[in-house]
Amino acid sequence: MTTQVDDATRERRVLDRIETARRRRPKLRDEHITMAHGAGGKATAALVDAVFLEAFRNPALEALDDGAHVDAGGARLVLTTDSYVVTPLFFPGGCIGDLAVNGTVNDLAVCGAKPLYLTCGFVLEEGFAVADLRRVVAAMAEAARTAGVTLVTGDTKVVPRGRADGCYVNTTGLGLFHPGGSTLDDESPMEGVVAADDPVGPWPVGYTPPGHRPTEPDRLDRLGMAHARPGDVVLVSGPIGDHGITIMLARGELDLEADLRSDTAPLSGLVERLLTATSGPEHGGGVRAMRDATRGGVATVLNELAMAAGVGVVIDEDAVPVREAVRGAAELLGIDPLYVACEGRLVAVVAPEAADAALAALLADPLGAGATVIGRVVDDPPGLVLLNTAFGGTRIVDMLVGDPLPRIC
Amino acid sequence: MTTQVDDATRERRVLDRIETARRRRPKLRDEHITMAHGAGGKATAALVDAVFLEAFRNPALEALDDGAHVDAGGARLVLTTDSYVVTPLFFPGGCIGDLAVNGTVNDLAVCGAKPLYLTCGFVLEEGFAVADLRRVVAAMAEAARTAGVTLVTGDTKVVPRGRADGCYVNTTGLGLFHPGGSTLDDESPMEGVVAADDPVGPWPVGYTPPGHRPTEPDRLDRLGMAHARPGDVVLVSGPIGDHGITIMLARGELDLEADLRSDTAPLSGLVERLLTATSGPEHGGGVRAMRDATRGGVATVLNELAMAAGVGVVIDEDAVPVREAVRGAAELLGIDPLYVACEGRLVAVVAPEAADAALAALLADPLGAGATVIGRVVDDPPGLVLLNTAFGGTRIVDMLVGDPLPRIC
Repeated sequence: MTTQVDDATRERRVLDRIETARRRRPKLRDEHITMAHGAGGKATAALVDAVFLEAFRNPALEALDDGAHVDAGGARLVLTTDSYVVTPLFFPGGCIGDLAVNGTVNDLAVCGAKPLYLTCGFVLEEGFAVADLRRVVAAMAEAARTAGVTLVTGDTKVVPRGRADGCYVNTTGLGLFHPGGSTLDDESPMEGVVAADDPVGPWPVGYTPPGHRPTEPDRLDRLGMAHARPGDVVLVSGPIGDHGITIMLARGELDLEADLRSDTAPLSGLVERLLTATSGPEHGGGVRAMRDATRGGVATVLNELAMAAGVGVVIDEDAVPVREAVRGAAELLGIDPLYVACEGRLVAVVAPEAADAALAALLADPLGAGATVIGRVVDDPPGLVLLNTAFGGTRIVDMLVGDPLPRIC
Repeated sequence: MTTQVDDATRERRVLDRIETARRRRPKLRDEHITMAHGAGGKATAALVDAVFLEAFRNPALEALDDGAHVDAGGARLVLTTDSYVVTPLFFPGGCIGDLAVNGTVNDLAVCGAKPLYLTCGFVLEEGFAVADLRRVVAAMAEAARTAGVTLVTGDTKVVPRGRADGCYVNTTGLGLFHPGGSTLDDESPMEGVVAADDPVGPWPVGYTPPGHRPTEPDRLDRLGMAHARPGDVVLVSGPIGDHGITIMLARGELDLEADLRSDTAPLSGLVERLLTATSGPEHGGGVRAMRDATRGGVATVLNELAMAAGVGVVIDEDAVPVREAVRGAAELLGIDPLYVACEGRLVAVVAPEAADAALAALLADPLGAGATVIGRVVDDPPGLVLLNTAFGGTRIVDMLVGDPLPRIC
């Protein structure tokens, strides 16, 4: 009887934590779209909650991961979509074309899927140079070859001058879910249900409505933001913010020159290496969640993690890898590098037993050469990200507010 | 021996016809994008050939059908993508939201796939009213429910004022290829290869480069534009041009009022009915090809058919169903209703033995209530569409030139 009471108390505490975290989700109050709604931070989350989730309730969408797990004809697949409106279209290290391919490949990869096929949809502005379009398309083709994906269908629309900005690209990706990416085999099938004897997880996905119980797709795997649990270790795969700062410098808005290039790259190989290295039973649950840190940067990824899993995240400022040029430019812009987009870096949350193997796997790949452990997942405060500063203090790393770096991707 | 010579002669004649048809494909000469490149006609075809096919050669893309047949995890799937830039966003009979869902559902359906999942990508203009976004999203949700598809993931980007026009939407669809939609079981497995003893088909897909032999995805089914052959019958499922003319009237650019509504509707049910009704061995090859007649209208669909299969198409002006209001408005605009977009009508090419069953199946569905036989596929001239006019003459129905009805979808 004592045990039962304890279990009930624990379960209530867990649900309280999730509720507390959920209350921290921002609310939509705007009557008109602002640039902030596209920045990937607080306003985007509010818009998604109030408009899209409200209209399209279903478990795949509500997981709010980078891609949706779906089943078709017996195959377990992941679908993901992204539109790209970056300006300028061409920048050191890449262009909108390879960015669009890599971004979608990465969204599939961090969902544990092997990227297979891409579609692309162009919205072109009347007057756009065909030579520029050729460059963009050539970069897409080259990026697709590198990532081993096939672009199988596309669409082109043209709008009059002044109704676009040269060229916008949507890429949608289809990937095959990699059973090796799931740790399901090693653990109990109790998935998507709050287990009373396991007060730290797994949780139902953070944003599902009260009473909703995740169905099939959630139950099939344990890879996703909602699966982080206290004790887990947080890693990044390399220096952060290169892409965002490169774009700002390329616009010439800062009176600053720096030898920086976008980090745009396909992370599917790195992810496979990471999953393989941490799949053994000696690595506990292995990889719990991965996310490429694009709009809103690492800070946004960690906040989404904290809210989805009802956990806290503590990171050490000193441990976060930032290039000097990025740090300098970010300081001039008055923004924290933690909010600056990368396009070839991932954040991984791994079981404590898997931390060493995960770090070693990342470091062994050229795209993970600068990988570090930046922090850990904690019980309290649920839904918040804390930073231990270089000066020994602690501050809250909130979700991105406003849009300090518009049209970065 | 005589037979062999005959076979060789026939085969050469077939290849000559395909070559003749291919030469009719327009060439890209523009240095800048014009509205015509987005109109779905000649300029679009030239752009697709010169820029996209050139960069992304692969059999799935080169089929140039409305969707790409792909294989993932053993499942036979169809992927399709479309961006929507229609103006105005709201019009009689629908809005950009249901248009985007129905359009992508229809592309899957005419490829013989059961639509399962959609993704959506929004590009919003700063200042766009959240209330309008809600209306668009509600229409998407309702259309998805009607069509039985699930919207599983999305993306939102925002661009500054003057860099879009309220709201652009990309929808990408994933469908499960319906074996009932293929007539493979009834025929020989000689697919994607010019069979010497069968001089009228099946053809390799019209736009593949010399020496290319279609691989797996092409070989798996016989549904697609390239499969039309002389003797086949061409049907449309109802009055054409309602959508395009409704949009032009909604813009107020014509000093004209008419009781017209967009025909936007999901055709997946109609397609299933059509395929089921024509699947028996008594219906010959059954349905050879379907296409929803959107940008560029029925004329463009027929031209693509003629070029893809290296055949001629002859239609009867009197047999093409056009509402009086559409005919009147088209006359005022100086365009032929054959070029005006529909968003809920399909063109079907069926074996002669299947014509009666096909027409009956279409007529039995509310969405096919106005279906008619409009013409037939012929040997000569390959790559051309001819119209028998109401006055007893004959004229060529060329591909759409320019963009008489911009931003219709």
